[in-house]
Amino acid sequence: MKLNQQGLLIVLSGPSGVGKATVRKALFEMDDHNFTYSISMTTRKPREGEVDGVDYYFVSEEEFESRIKQGRFLEFARFVGNYYGTPMDEVEKMIANGDEVVLEIEVEGAMQVKAKMPDAVLIFIAPPTFNALKTRLLRRGTEPEEIIMERLSKAHRELTLAAGYDYIVINDDVENAADRIKAIIRAEHARCRRSLKGYLQLLEENENE
Amino acid sequence: MKLNQQGLLIVLSGPSGVGKATVRKALFEMDDHNFTYSISMTTRKPREGEVDGVDYYFVSEEEFESRIKQGRFLEFARFVGNYYGTPMDEVEKMIANGDEVVLEIEVEGAMQVKAKMPDAVLIFIAPPTFNALKTRLLRRGTEPEEIIMERLSKAHRELTLAAGYDYIVINDDVENAADRIKAIIRAEHARCRRSLKGYLQLLEENENE
Repeated sequence: MKLNQQGLLIVLSGPSGVGKATVRKALFEMDDHNFTYSISMTTRKPREGEVDGVDYYFVSEEEFESRIKQGRFLEFARFVGNYYGTPMDEVEKMIANGDEVVLEIEVEGAMQVKAKMPDAVLIFIAPPTFNALKTRLLRRGTEPEEIIMERLSKAHRELTLAAGYDYIVINDDVENAADRIKAIIRAEHARCRRSLKGYLQLLEENENE
Repeated sequence: MKLNQQGLLIVLSGPSGVGKATVRKALFEMDDHNFTYSISMTTRKPREGEVDGVDYYFVSEEEFESRIKQGRFLEFARFVGNYYGTPMDEVEKMIANGDEVVLEIEVEGAMQVKAKMPDAVLIFIAPPTFNALKTRLLRRGTEPEEIIMERLSKAHRELTLAAGYDYIVINDDVENAADRIKAIIRAEHARCRRSLKGYLQLLEENENE
């Protein structure tokens, strides 16, 4: 019996290298939920093969900044001269439609989302140890060591932000982590503040039959 | 990886006839949690075969009232001339020991628990329809119809109290309801306010190795 007809906004976040994308992928492979992405908006130029409205919404800097002023982003950031953001109206539409919207974003972005949409479920994906994080970043082999050390020290700072999250899930094992997130989603749907209204409506409908 | 070494205090409550005891039993039969009861204290005389410290703690009215004054009950009530209550110190000891303590109590009692121990997890077990509740109460066959009608009207009033709970779980199917409660318990252990401290300790221990 589904009491909460709305979907949830689930924010997966955590330090770089913790395996957010892998956990999100494992979650999407569980077929008993209707998970969905939201498409980001950016001012960077499309790369070859990238399609507007599929990979990103590609907009001009002017358009992006006008949307910032109108408060139409759940979160946004500037990287290497380009804006990236999550459009709010789209996420709201999907939630109303009953979809579980999963955002996989950086820690600063997650705090912006909580401020804009306090009903969002913030999950901090945490490394089992700092060494595990270091090993993962080194294994990627894509960055020089000083960048990795910088990321680790950033991760240290980000852990102090974990207190602002609703849940902490350790990525000791991807399947385990995804399974724990599934339990969190189930529990959140059962929260009185989400489901009581639907329950009282249900009772009323049954009484009128 | 267990971050929260403490157990939870889980309060199962809801209108009379909703099947609280059946759901609690199904929950205890799941073998992957260390669920435990707390033994109630009462001023009623032991019945034949009842053992002090097993079925109840049997105490005098004087002793019970002195404990009320000392604020040593999580909740208590007076039924047919006798006191019944849940001793606080025992529950606190079990939680510290890592046990999940399940209380199956009336709605008024649940509100007392929340006031005394805000960290408790309050779950409102709700009937799928009012007719389902009526049918259950009639099927019991133990009470005259006017008592049943009185209980139903009390249940109506109690539903308005459900808003003070953390979760609402519909007992449409006992296994389903127990399974949802299990997800709630898992999620509650992952809550930052319960597990962040344990996580930071874990990181520190690993760094010192």
